Amino acid sequence: MPMGAYPTPQTAADVLARVRRLRPRVHCLMNTVVQKFTADGITVVGGIPSMTSSLEEIAAFAGKADALTVNLGTLDAERRRAILRAVAVVNEAGKPWILDPVHCDYSPQRLAFAHELIALGPTIVRGNAAEMALIGTDGPGLRIQTGAVDRIGSGRGAVRIENGHRWMAEVTGTGCLTGGVIAAFLAVEPDAVAAAASALAVTGVAAELAAPLSRGPGSFGIAFLDALSAIGERELLSHARIEHDQD
Amino acid sequence: MPMGAYPTPQTAADVLARVRRLRPRVHCLMNTVVQKFTADGITVVGGIPSMTSSLEEIAAFAGKADALTVNLGTLDAERRRAILRAVAVVNEAGKPWILDPVHCDYSPQRLAFAHELIALGPTIVRGNAAEMALIGTDGPGLRIQTGAVDRIGSGRGAVRIENGHRWMAEVTGTGCLTGGVIAAFLAVEPDAVAAAASALAVTGVAAELAAPLSRGPGSFGIAFLDALSAIGERELLSHARIEHDQD
Amino acid sequence: MPMGAYPTPQTAADVLARVRRLRPRVHCLMNTVVQKFTADGITVVGGIPSMTSSLEEIAAFAGKADALTVNLGTLDAERRRAILRAVAVVNEAGKPWILDPVHCDYSPQRLAFAHELIALGPTIVRGNAAEMALIGTDGPGLRIQTGAVDRIGSGRGAVRIENGHRWMAEVTGTGCLTGGVIAAFLAVEPDAVAAAASALAVTGVAAELAAPLSRGPGSFGIAFLDALSAIGERELLSHARIEHDQD
Repeated sequence: MPMGAYPTPQTAADVLARVRRLRPRVHCLMNTVVQKFTADGITVVGGIPSMTSSLEEIAAFAGKADALTVNLGTLDAERRRAILRAVAVVNEAGKPWILDPVHCDYSPQRLAFAHELIALGPTIVRGNAAEMALIGTDGPGLRIQTGAVDRIGSGRGAVRIENGHRWMAEVTGTGCLTGGVIAAFLAVEPDAVAAAASALAVTGVAAELAAPLSRGPGSFGIAFLDALSAIGERELLSHARIEHDQD
Repeated sequence: MPMGAYPTPQTAADVLARVRRLRPRVHCLMNTVVQKFTADGITVVGGIPSMTSSLEEIAAFAGKADALTVNLGTLDAERRRAILRAVAVVNEAGKPWILDPVHCDYSPQRLAFAHELIALGPTIVRGNAAEMALIGTDGPGLRIQTGAVDRIGSGRGAVRIENGHRWMAEVTGTGCLTGGVIAAFLAVEPDAVAAAASALAVTGVAAELAAPLSRGPGSFGIAFLDALSAIGERELLSHARIEHDQD
Repeated sequence: MPMGAYPTPQTAADVLARVRRLRPRVHCLMNTVVQKFTADGITVVGGIPSMTSSLEEIAAFAGKADALTVNLGTLDAERRRAILRAVAVVNEAGKPWILDPVHCDYSPQRLAFAHELIALGPTIVRGNAAEMALIGTDGPGLRIQTGAVDRIGSGRGAVRIENGHRWMAEVTGTGCLTGGVIAAFLAVEPDAVAAAASALAVTGVAAELAAPLSRGPGSFGIAFLDALSAIGERELLSHARIEHDQD
């Protein structure tokens, strides 16, 4: 789509098809809780995940990646150093990265580190309402707030993705997985609004397709992966609800 | 229920309803193997889990929690220090905590650390038969041995929960998840026997409801989460078997 | 089967039955991403997994194990030291161990460490095509390359396992889980070719049984665990395809 145009369900279908054709590598500096779920999510949409946080190896892994996701869950000193090294590598190479300031509302140290990272220029910052209220709108990085409705940017021209299902909030890691999927989409689409809207439409529609096949949050988490693998243009054109404010 | 009375299936239904209404925060110092499974279990019964073991952040997270679970699986030096700091925070605040001495029968260092923690006054110590034989009955903390039958306390007045399914032993982490659920129940019920019996009845009945919907241990682990989410008063009153020795 | 004879589907059925009877303990030095999935896989075939990477405890855990699996995913400095200590313990006791050089094609440090470990004499080295091309055939250790077809050894006398399903590549950790299952089989079968062929036939046939019960990679990962639990002689004799080159 032309840079600056509003993303549509067709945009989402096109960017998803590109992810599946190009198979971008996504390196994840990710909390230990949801590493497998996130890796599975990136894989089934068509990307290739890697996960190490080792300080000695991070430069090699970040150097091979097409996009990076930095997730602050279960943060410790070694992962903090690894994050800074990985960000330096991808910034130097001009590759996109997304910051997910998980639980920055729980710990002042984590919030301070999130602000330190924002100063380094993430392509996108994604969090829930409590996290994004503290992150604010100052500094670089497209802001995305996910929840019952996902909001990209703010003010006039903001984009809303009105897909999803309430069980997403009952499966640990759907937000983290979504961050990884956004990174995969950023790797193949330079317009951050288009990449983010596409990724959020794909995860939101997949959730809607998964819910009626599930008995509760446990089977929903599994059916969500199945749906992310099966989803395509037809499902996106019929289900995606990408809205925007009037200019 | 009155302090000191025997817990019944109605107790379990009442405490579960309170967890769902009050949404207690449970911080988990938890082995990396089963973090997501435990977080999912706490979430679907109605609690809000957090998982960091970082030394710098643990005081902030423990301070926000309503209960703490300390699990000794995949223990390392940093987590050991984080555990001691978290226990100090919750003890100071008078909040409940549960110790799960995973595999203390494998390593003398781990058993020694378990005894060091017991001296700090856990509300509950929960383990399997091999672990609890080594833990013994000296020192503070209500003792719970889980297995085919779960036993709370010992001697006259001991309570037995006779629910569950053999597949629980074939899914890594059901014991750890149960520890997290007990912590959520302790956060809203000051009588430790009532909280523990209620949590064990909920997990045991959920397992019984999940098994006939499953093809094996893999699908059982998923159906168990679905059942923990769906279970309520009706299922507990008809299925929970909470027995006690005669006084 | 006689040492040196070619493994057959009956070999696989016999070794699996022995694993279920003897319940070998398998210690896993394993990346944090797939610890639960691997532990579940080892458990459902009949083994008993343990997972710590703590330097202080590793000697006690490795000493209690009947076999060891060393997996280089998400490698860091502490796990590297723990690996060397665990290998020293099992080598001293004459117990088998398997090396899984995950992503050694991503990082020169990781490849160098893989070669350092091969010099210590693993019973088996298992990887995908990209990894095994770099590992080469010099030094000790039976070589196994897993993929659409699994290959054990090379040249005349090589064994091929032609089971499996394409969804195995879309579930993070099936290769790591397979490494853990091979270790469980090595613990009860001294002929490494027979142990490996049996383990690969069991995992490959389980995948074939799981696929038609699944809607996509998510439910396939779960059905795969169910199938590993349920599989027995009948399924192996009718489905296992263990081929070998002519001598």
